Amino acid sequence: MGKVRAWAAMGPRQPLQPFEFDPGPLPAGQVEVAVEHCGLCHSDLSLRDDAWGMSRFPLVPGHEAIGTLVAVGEGVRGLRPGQRVGVGWNAHSCQHCETCLDGRQHLCASVRPTLIGRHGAFAERVRVDALWAVPLPEGLDPAEAGPLLCGGITVFAPLRELAIPPTARVAVVGIGGLGHLALAFSRAWGCEVTAITSSPAKVAEALDLGAHQAVCSEDRSALKRLSGRFDLILVTANASLDWNALLGALAPEGRLHVVGAVPEPIPVPAFALISGQKSVSGSPTGSRGALAQMLAFAARHRILPRNEHFPMSQVNAALEHLAAGRARYRVVLDADFT
Amino acid sequence: MGKVRAWAAMGPRQPLQPFEFDPGPLPAGQVEVAVEHCGLCHSDLSLRDDAWGMSRFPLVPGHEAIGTLVAVGEGVRGLRPGQRVGVGWNAHSCQHCETCLDGRQHLCASVRPTLIGRHGAFAERVRVDALWAVPLPEGLDPAEAGPLLCGGITVFAPLRELAIPPTARVAVVGIGGLGHLALAFSRAWGCEVTAITSSPAKVAEALDLGAHQAVCSEDRSALKRLSGRFDLILVTANASLDWNALLGALAPEGRLHVVGAVPEPIPVPAFALISGQKSVSGSPTGSRGALAQMLAFAARHRILPRNEHFPMSQVNAALEHLAAGRARYRVVLDADFT
Repeated sequence: MGKVRAWAAMGPRQPLQPFEFDPGPLPAGQVEVAVEHCGLCHSDLSLRDDAWGMSRFPLVPGHEAIGTLVAVGEGVRGLRPGQRVGVGWNAHSCQHCETCLDGRQHLCASVRPTLIGRHGAFAERVRVDALWAVPLPEGLDPAEAGPLLCGGITVFAPLRELAIPPTARVAVVGIGGLGHLALAFSRAWGCEVTAITSSPAKVAEALDLGAHQAVCSEDRSALKRLSGRFDLILVTANASLDWNALLGALAPEGRLHVVGAVPEPIPVPAFALISGQKSVSGSPTGSRGALAQMLAFAARHRILPRNEHFPMSQVNAALEHLAAGRARYRVVLDADFT
Repeated sequence: MGKVRAWAAMGPRQPLQPFEFDPGPLPAGQVEVAVEHCGLCHSDLSLRDDAWGMSRFPLVPGHEAIGTLVAVGEGVRGLRPGQRVGVGWNAHSCQHCETCLDGRQHLCASVRPTLIGRHGAFAERVRVDALWAVPLPEGLDPAEAGPLLCGGITVFAPLRELAIPPTARVAVVGIGGLGHLALAFSRAWGCEVTAITSSPAKVAEALDLGAHQAVCSEDRSALKRLSGRFDLILVTANASLDWNALLGALAPEGRLHVVGAVPEPIPVPAFALISGQKSVSGSPTGSRGALAQMLAFAARHRILPRNEHFPMSQVNAALEHLAAGRARYRVVLDADFT
């Protein structure tokens, strides 16, 4: 199939530019996906800027792809060319360690993302281990489903992994790309859902997105009234927050769960954990099983991200739109290589 | 029955002295226990010294009592005079809130300890709500069982509450009054047990106490070899520790659980939680159901604290022994009012 056209940053904080590479023969165990749509995630931006010191250039971002299988490597079972699949954050896991064999592939010590050390999905085609190409169920619009593969699984996985019961009171902190999906998933999960946003403008929007109630985190008295209320507080913001207030808003046995890239260590007083039997925790995306369950759950409950679309050739404008905090709520790039 | 003789501190950091009080008529719903033995817990010391700013004087410490029911208040069901019971940290919970009705009485917002605002068990007799007098099962030596009621439940409850499976790898940090019971309980729970102690002298002892292996926390290379190993690290020490090393010693989905009164906020980097799907948590003692299960489990597995005995009249010597870090591993006072 020859060379792959893509969009790549040639160095930190550089705009993406057209980039071609020869992917070579398809290795055994991998599949190749013709990208139709790809979500734009905040971590694409962080990697373009090398904010985490782990980027390798040329960097082809993109890890929320929906596309069609065009090639299947030797030894791959259960997938066939022509199938529509999703590709998310992870592209490789070892498949033979205790963690992988136990179905926790996203926690494998050798897990590798789709866009570090290989080329991501702002491209005509992308390659991943067969495991990480997840068949898209019927009823999920391929043009809109992309952000479920990273943003969606990141906020769905805690509900599943922590066995949150539908009787729980859930708060979602930060109503953006992750947070708006967290509202939808926890609402469909059966929970009582509260949105906590720093943006007064989003209070009303949050109700429309699935929250039963919404409060502005700048309103200290509103936060105080929520003291002792929540079984789960899901932090999707990548900012420093009023951690003591959030710990105080947990019910007995409550859990503060972080999925946003909070920049500084969270100071957790032991007594705040001990007296109410509380937890502070975090999680990355999700296992292969969780991804498939999440897509099926989203299809059944008609959960899709609210997307703004850009042609992939406008990727730099899309990145600036996201960086400026203007995305409402997720951005999807539609492949337009011609 | 008239006045109660006891040992009380009349002010912060004062030695205990003989003290008599009139308990008045026995209120409905309460029971009165003639104290035979009472464990000495580090929190008795902290309260004598008003280290937590919540002590009220005269303070009669003591909250790990074994004794015999001598009176049963109006409305009490299921208990009868003559029964041998244990009394632990809690003496009162409201019994009508959602948390109580759900069997989580130790997390009730109105839960009250046995020795704050009422008189504890370094006394001839002690009173608690009937709920908090737990019948002692056959096969537990009354002279030795006392410390199970606070120290024991504190380290048993996490195994139950967190649903730790017997396949888990458990590390116990701090091998003292709590830690030596944690080794015994987690060993009987079926887990692989590692002791982590700051005292080289305790490395060998820990093996005798139930650990499969023991390491000295001063040995950095030994700690490094344990990287990624533990499903549960139970911190029983009330000291600041090398938190980053401990978080690094957790396996994927591992949990650092604190039951010791760690003096300063634990700095928890979000990435350390997210990438390995880890938790940091804490818990106080346990519910009424957990207390009963713990005693039955201890009886079945022949788990008892290793105690040093002092006559209760030597309580000040016993307190100094504990404060000096010389207790091996728990102190029990035998009532000797004559």
